[in-house]
Amino acid sequence: MKKLNIVKVGGNIIEKEEDLQSFLDAFAALPEPKILVHGGGKLASQLAERLEIPVNMVNGRRITDAETVEVITMVYGGKVNKSIVAGLQARNCNAIGFSGADGNTILSVKRPVKEIDFGFVGDVVAVDSEMIDKLLSIGITPAFCAITHDGNGQLFNTNADTIACELARGLSKNYEVTLNYCFEKNGVLLDINDDTSVVKDIDSAKYAELLEEKIIADGMLPKMENCFYALKGGVQQVRLGKPEMLYNKDANFTTLRL
Amino acid sequence: MKKLNIVKVGGNIIEKEEDLQSFLDAFAALPEPKILVHGGGKLASQLAERLEIPVNMVNGRRITDAETVEVITMVYGGKVNKSIVAGLQARNCNAIGFSGADGNTILSVKRPVKEIDFGFVGDVVAVDSEMIDKLLSIGITPAFCAITHDGNGQLFNTNADTIACELARGLSKNYEVTLNYCFEKNGVLLDINDDTSVVKDIDSAKYAELLEEKIIADGMLPKMENCFYALKGGVQQVRLGKPEMLYNKDANFTTLRL
Repeated sequence: MKKLNIVKVGGNIIEKEEDLQSFLDAFAALPEPKILVHGGGKLASQLAERLEIPVNMVNGRRITDAETVEVITMVYGGKVNKSIVAGLQARNCNAIGFSGADGNTILSVKRPVKEIDFGFVGDVVAVDSEMIDKLLSIGITPAFCAITHDGNGQLFNTNADTIACELARGLSKNYEVTLNYCFEKNGVLLDINDDTSVVKDIDSAKYAELLEEKIIADGMLPKMENCFYALKGGVQQVRLGKPEMLYNKDANFTTLRL
Repeated sequence: MKKLNIVKVGGNIIEKEEDLQSFLDAFAALPEPKILVHGGGKLASQLAERLEIPVNMVNGRRITDAETVEVITMVYGGKVNKSIVAGLQARNCNAIGFSGADGNTILSVKRPVKEIDFGFVGDVVAVDSEMIDKLLSIGITPAFCAITHDGNGQLFNTNADTIACELARGLSKNYEVTLNYCFEKNGVLLDINDDTSVVKDIDSAKYAELLEEKIIADGMLPKMENCFYALKGGVQQVRLGKPEMLYNKDANFTTLRL
C-alpha cells in the first residue's frame, strides 16, 4: 500500500509566525501524498475580543454561538488557512485549503445536547476518503482547517485533533497512514518539566502502564485517546513531537503503535 | 467541445442573505461543469469598520494595505466563501472553495506603482486551466473568491470580474465557455432607470454604437471591456443580467458575442 502522512499542527506553532514558517518548511519537505490539519489557536479568541463578541463559557467549556462560528470561519478558514496554502505554494507544495464542507469531505452532526448545549460544534460522522484519494492522486496536498458541516448549509467548529484522527482512519483503507501530531513538546514526557524525558515508544501495554502511573493526565488524556482510536481504526503509527520529527528520525519524539 | 458555465455573482446579491440563497438555487440547478466566482461587496468594509481599520483612499480609489488584505482574506476567503460552499453542498452541488493560491490556480503580480501604489492588489498573469480541468473532471465545482497570490506567499486582493474573465479565457482552450455576470439589473439598459429597456444582443458593431451614444458609461465601461476581452480570448458568449437568466432563457438579459 502507498504511504500517506497526515500532519496536525498545534495552535502554539501557528500563533508564532517564525514557528509556523519553520513548520511549513518541514511539512513541504515531506514526500507526497500528505495532508495538513490545523486549528487556529488563540487567533480566533483575539479577533472575537477585538469585535467585542463575549466569550460564552459553561462549566469551564466554551460555547460556539452563531457569532463565534462566523469568527472561527473567518480566522481558521480565511486568514490561517489561506496563509498556510500560500506559504506551501511558495515552497512548491501544491496545496488546496479545505473545510469539511469543501468537496463534502467531512460531514458532522451538531453535538447532542446533554447537560450542556455546546452550540455550533460538530461531531464527525463521515469522511469521504474516496474524494480525498482522488485529490491526492492528481497531486493535491489538502490543508484542512478545523471546520466541518452538516450537509444542510451549517458550518461547525470541530476539534482539529479529531479531524486529523478521523481523516487518518478514513484513509487507512487506501493508504499505510502515519498520523503526526506536531506541537511544542518532544512528545509524551515522563516529567512534564523535562523536555528530554521522552517516552520514545508506546504500545497498548505501555499505554496502560502510563495511565496507571498517572504519567498521562490532563490535556494529554484526550490526545492519547484519539491516538489509540486512530490505531484501532487501522492507522499504522502515530507520532507526537516537535516539527523536527518530520525530517529527522533521530529527533526526540514519541511513536505509538497498537 | 464540452460546455462550461462560469458565473460571477455581484456584491449586491451576496450582501442580502435572501438574494444569495435564490442565486445559489439558480446556480446549483445549472448542469455541470460550472465555476462560481464571487467578491464580498461591502462585507469587508463593514468588518474593517468594526475593527477600526482606516479606509485608505487615494484619488477616490481604495488602497489595500496589509491589514486590509487580511480582512479581505477573512471575509472573502473565510466567511463568504465557506458559507457559499456549505450552501452549494446543501443543494447537492459538490463545491470546493478556492483562492488563486489554492492549487496555484491563479497567479498574479502586485499591480505596478505608477501614480498610485494600490498596495496588495494583484494583476492576473496566469491561470492553471489544466489543474482546473482536472478538478472539473472529477465532479468538483470550484467556487473562487476574489483573492490571488504571487507564488511567494503573498495574497492579493483582485477584482472578481477580472478573475471570472481570466478563468473564462484560460478554460476556452478546453471548453465552449459561457461567462455569466449576475447582478441586480437586467443587463445593459438603454435607460439606466428603466429595467425593461434591455439591449438583448450586443456584438462588436453594436458595442461601438452604444459607446458612441454614451449608453455604456461609468461602472459599465470596465465591465464591458472585460466582456469583450473575454470574447476576444476565445469565450463563446457573455451574458449580463439577474440570476433568473441562468434558468429562464426567456428572461430579460444581455448576450454579448464578437
